[in-house]
Amino acid sequence: MPDVKLNFKLENLRVVLVAPRNPLNIGAAARAMSNFGAFHLRVVRPYEKAFREAVSAVGASGILAKAEEFDGIAEAVSDCSLVVGTTAIGNRELQHPLYPLSQAAPKLRSRLLNGSVALLFGSEKWGLSNDDLSHCHWLLHIPAREDHRSMNLGQAVAVCLYELVRMPAPRSAAAKPGEMASMQTVDRITAALLESLQISGYVKPRAGASAGQKLRRMIRRFALQSADAEVLLGMLHKLLWKLRSTKS
Amino acid sequence: MPDVKLNFKLENLRVVLVAPRNPLNIGAAARAMSNFGAFHLRVVRPYEKAFREAVSAVGASGILAKAEEFDGIAEAVSDCSLVVGTTAIGNRELQHPLYPLSQAAPKLRSRLLNGSVALLFGSEKWGLSNDDLSHCHWLLHIPAREDHRSMNLGQAVAVCLYELVRMPAPRSAAAKPGEMASMQTVDRITAALLESLQISGYVKPRAGASAGQKLRRMIRRFALQSADAEVLLGMLHKLLWKLRSTKS
Repeated sequence: MPDVKLNFKLENLRVVLVAPRNPLNIGAAARAMSNFGAFHLRVVRPYEKAFREAVSAVGASGILAKAEEFDGIAEAVSDCSLVVGTTAIGNRELQHPLYPLSQAAPKLRSRLLNGSVALLFGSEKWGLSNDDLSHCHWLLHIPAREDHRSMNLGQAVAVCLYELVRMPAPRSAAAKPGEMASMQTVDRITAALLESLQISGYVKPRAGASAGQKLRRMIRRFALQSADAEVLLGMLHKLLWKLRSTKS
Repeated sequence: MPDVKLNFKLENLRVVLVAPRNPLNIGAAARAMSNFGAFHLRVVRPYEKAFREAVSAVGASGILAKAEEFDGIAEAVSDCSLVVGTTAIGNRELQHPLYPLSQAAPKLRSRLLNGSVALLFGSEKWGLSNDDLSHCHWLLHIPAREDHRSMNLGQAVAVCLYELVRMPAPRSAAAKPGEMASMQTVDRITAALLESLQISGYVKPRAGASAGQKLRRMIRRFALQSADAEVLLGMLHKLLWKLRSTKS
């Protein structure tokens, strides 16, 4: 009997379900994770009854019992250095780079060698909202038929994890890029810049959430390395301190 | 929005579920088939109630309504020229050639060009029996963790179909990276940031050339896209304008 070992570890992957509503889907996602060796499940704003039901279901895996619950995406991905959203690319206008899963997988694998990566799945009904997407660096989609793109949540998780582990590991991690900034630092940079722009009048007081979303997306495109991010944050705090002194 | 077309037709594929017991799994298999463009579902000795329930479920696809029911595998695959079984390779002694899904897919694709191919999935509880397997030319398995090989039926169908169609069309419009910022813009960003940092006191008046050099290197590491660079420059000019007003 062939002894199949997965030669790629998903230890650094965080599977993040955003607002899932169906306990069977949460359970199915956890089962696929167990099949493919991804053990860290995070759930953001689950439909509470569904989550409790999934966790207490007969045969629920340890993955479900250890699943972490969060109030928002920022909190759920704060320790990750890359955040990738999944989308069925419907009619929504996308503001992000979008890759088919087969092209996304090598990018994910190389980043998983160096740090935590969050893979976001939206709710069964709506997918990820524009606000959810603003937390992402880029997006992936599973190529599907134009007339029926929307996949079942548990099946989408299974397909994504399968693609990540399907191929043999690369021989060596060529040219390691520097460690990437954590989302916590990136979010602090975004917040400091937003406040600076508000004080300076670049962002109007009533611009609402969209200014923050645009800023979040832009700063994620910069692909900040950890050391640079710390420097940038220090700069912004100093600018902000000076700008605050101009307010009466 | 990229228009993703599947460049491989599954018209000749027959998905054969052998003795399925759970209506939700039958429905999930049909949904994955619809996602990936495989329209011919066959069911052998289904648990009758489950099959009726699946077919009459709200939202059941046309695939389910047109599913064909058979009393035996021989009848279900009689018009096919290749029969392939799926297995989680447990303790059973295998008498067949066995390929991981990624190696099985090219073989399946090439045979699908010429005639009908049956892909068999066993029941949720037992998989395919030795008798079922005796109808197969060869077997495939989805690489999974040794401690938890058995996949959910609907997820196994989704993963197999995904692998068959996973390669995107050669010249599909995959995420194009945006045009990169010109060095002229990058230098203007650097200059605006440097002056802001000097006014705020982050950079000391006599820091000399090294502060500017460090900043230049850092900003180049951000790999700014053209559109983002213009936005960033606008932001910095506004911040700088405000900061200048604080100087006596």
